[in-house]
Amino acid sequence: MPFIRECIVTTLRENDDVHIAPMGIHEDGKRLIILPFKPSTTLDNLERQGTATLNYTDDVRIYAGCLTGRSDWPTCSTEIIQGVRLEDCLAHTELEVTGKVDDPVRPRYSCKTVHEAIHAPFHGYNRAQSAVIELAILVSRLHMLPQARVHQEIEYLRTSVDKTAGPREQEAWDWLMTKVDSFQTSKKESRR
Amino acid sequence: MPFIRECIVTTLRENDDVHIAPMGIHEDGKRLIILPFKPSTTLDNLERQGTATLNYTDDVRIYAGCLTGRSDWPTCSTEIIQGVRLEDCLAHTELEVTGKVDDPVRPRYSCKTVHEAIHAPFHGYNRAQSAVIELAILVSRLHMLPQARVHQEIEYLRTSVDKTAGPREQEAWDWLMTKVDSFQTSKKESRR
Repeated sequence: MPFIRECIVTTLRENDDVHIAPMGIHEDGKRLIILPFKPSTTLDNLERQGTATLNYTDDVRIYAGCLTGRSDWPTCSTEIIQGVRLEDCLAHTELEVTGKVDDPVRPRYSCKTVHEAIHAPFHGYNRAQSAVIELAILVSRLHMLPQARVHQEIEYLRTSVDKTAGPREQEAWDWLMTKVDSFQTSKKESRR
Repeated sequence: MPFIRECIVTTLRENDDVHIAPMGIHEDGKRLIILPFKPSTTLDNLERQGTATLNYTDDVRIYAGCLTGRSDWPTCSTEIIQGVRLEDCLAHTELEVTGKVDDPVRPRYSCKTVHEAIHAPFHGYNRAQSAVIELAILVSRLHMLPQARVHQEIEYLRTSVDKTAGPREQEAWDWLMTKVDSFQTSKKESRR
């Protein structure tokens, strides 16, 4: 059972455009394992560049945004690797790929940390942020899950948002819920 | 709807012993609001000292420990206020009370930040850590909640722990579950 860091992975495309993706990164001792799906842009970029940045932000709109067509978040250059990091992150880690185990679904890229920097203080847990992360994961699996379960989990998560969210968390939640609603509407329509 | 930071509040008792308590701190613009229950040690200490430390740690055993009789965590002196902070925290904020609104249940202590420092990088969200925080909140309300709901929420949270926990998160989860189990056993026995 590996410890998993939910973070924002930034990589560069062949034309140097930035690619931003929320991913779960596995810790394996001092190594960090990136497991991109096949096919995916992160996988292509990792294969070509051999580097990636892990961004640790508490702005959950970036997680929700990446799942709802809002992936244009400010970035700046990294220190050691040729890449970028999110401007608004609490800390970031620059990685170099050191090994790969291929897999038909999710190859494992083993990476070493070549640089890490802190940019702002972590201010503790926020239950609404955690709920947005859970909703984001639900949204990425909508087509695989029974609707009743999705509904039930959303009702559970909504309580934390109602009680503890600030404006950023509320906005992120609303973006994701719009996606849930339009998925459910399109499902109903396809049944007619 | 205020944004709430879940963190560990450290205060000093009259004899200078350390008091550690997990609490939800409300943001109100630049002010931070501490809402201790009446009666409580944090309330007594705040009244007497007029200062407190917010500790932001990603070691969720400290949250679970405070609810299960394990409150002896290493601390060191604060920089500006006369107090302590957790040694193992990612960042901490030193607060001075600037105002108070009394209340029969939870008085509101309005505080200003007099110092803040970063000690280690935030490494992103971890779903097991969030699940432990939610379980800790459940455990603090066991006597108020229907058992069926407690059971259902635990089953939901357990998935995140099974999938993403490291040893610290698993230990924290196990401490809290022992408390849930003994509460349920004692309830069954009192019904006989």
